[in-house]
Amino acid sequence: MTFVNAGTLGAVAGARDELVRLLTQRNDALREIGCRLYEVGVSDDQPDVVFVVELWDSAEAHRASLELPEVQAAIAQARPLLSGEFGGFRFDVVGSPLRD
Amino acid sequence: MTFVNAGTLGAVAGARDELVRLLTQRNDALREIGCRLYEVGVSDDQPDVVFVVELWDSAEAHRASLELPEVQAAIAQARPLLSGEFGGFRFDVVGSPLRD
Repeated sequence: MTFVNAGTLGAVAGARDELVRLLTQRNDALREIGCRLYEVGVSDDQPDVVFVVELWDSAEAHRASLELPEVQAAIAQARPLLSGEFGGFRFDVVGSPLRD
Repeated sequence: MTFVNAGTLGAVAGARDELVRLLTQRNDALREIGCRLYEVGVSDDQPDVVFVVELWDSAEAHRASLELPEVQAAIAQARPLLSGEFGGFRFDVVGSPLRD
């Protein structure tokens, strides 16, 4: 079942853009493992937060991605940039008004 | 600039699936006005919540969609199903690890 992870990652002061750079590094292994969409962004309203929405073939594909060496390396690089404040939600997709 | 709306809508007891039905009614006007993705879902962890993630050509396209007659009608139908608890976040997309 298609799975969505929508999350917010708090950055320490001044580190937001470096965190964005890490999260947007090209990684074709994500698509190969079942990632259909992975959008990273920012908002003027919350200048120390990085936002992500990810669409996966399944919750299992998402979980498996966290074990990829490239992802593990990015997590290690990101750790000192994170404030420890996380938010968001996860869900199983049941439909869309854009398709039958 | 590509824009994301990620939200949670609390449903009154027993109304979640009807709310999902309303939100997933086929509406090609959304795509025509700049909607690229609109996924609706649920989670066993929060049985009275409906989740959405939407990807739009711009924040303006998203705002304009709320004025569409079909969307106004769906909002009116949804109102009695909503508990009044909303969550989520919005952001401007700056990149993706799936593309350069």
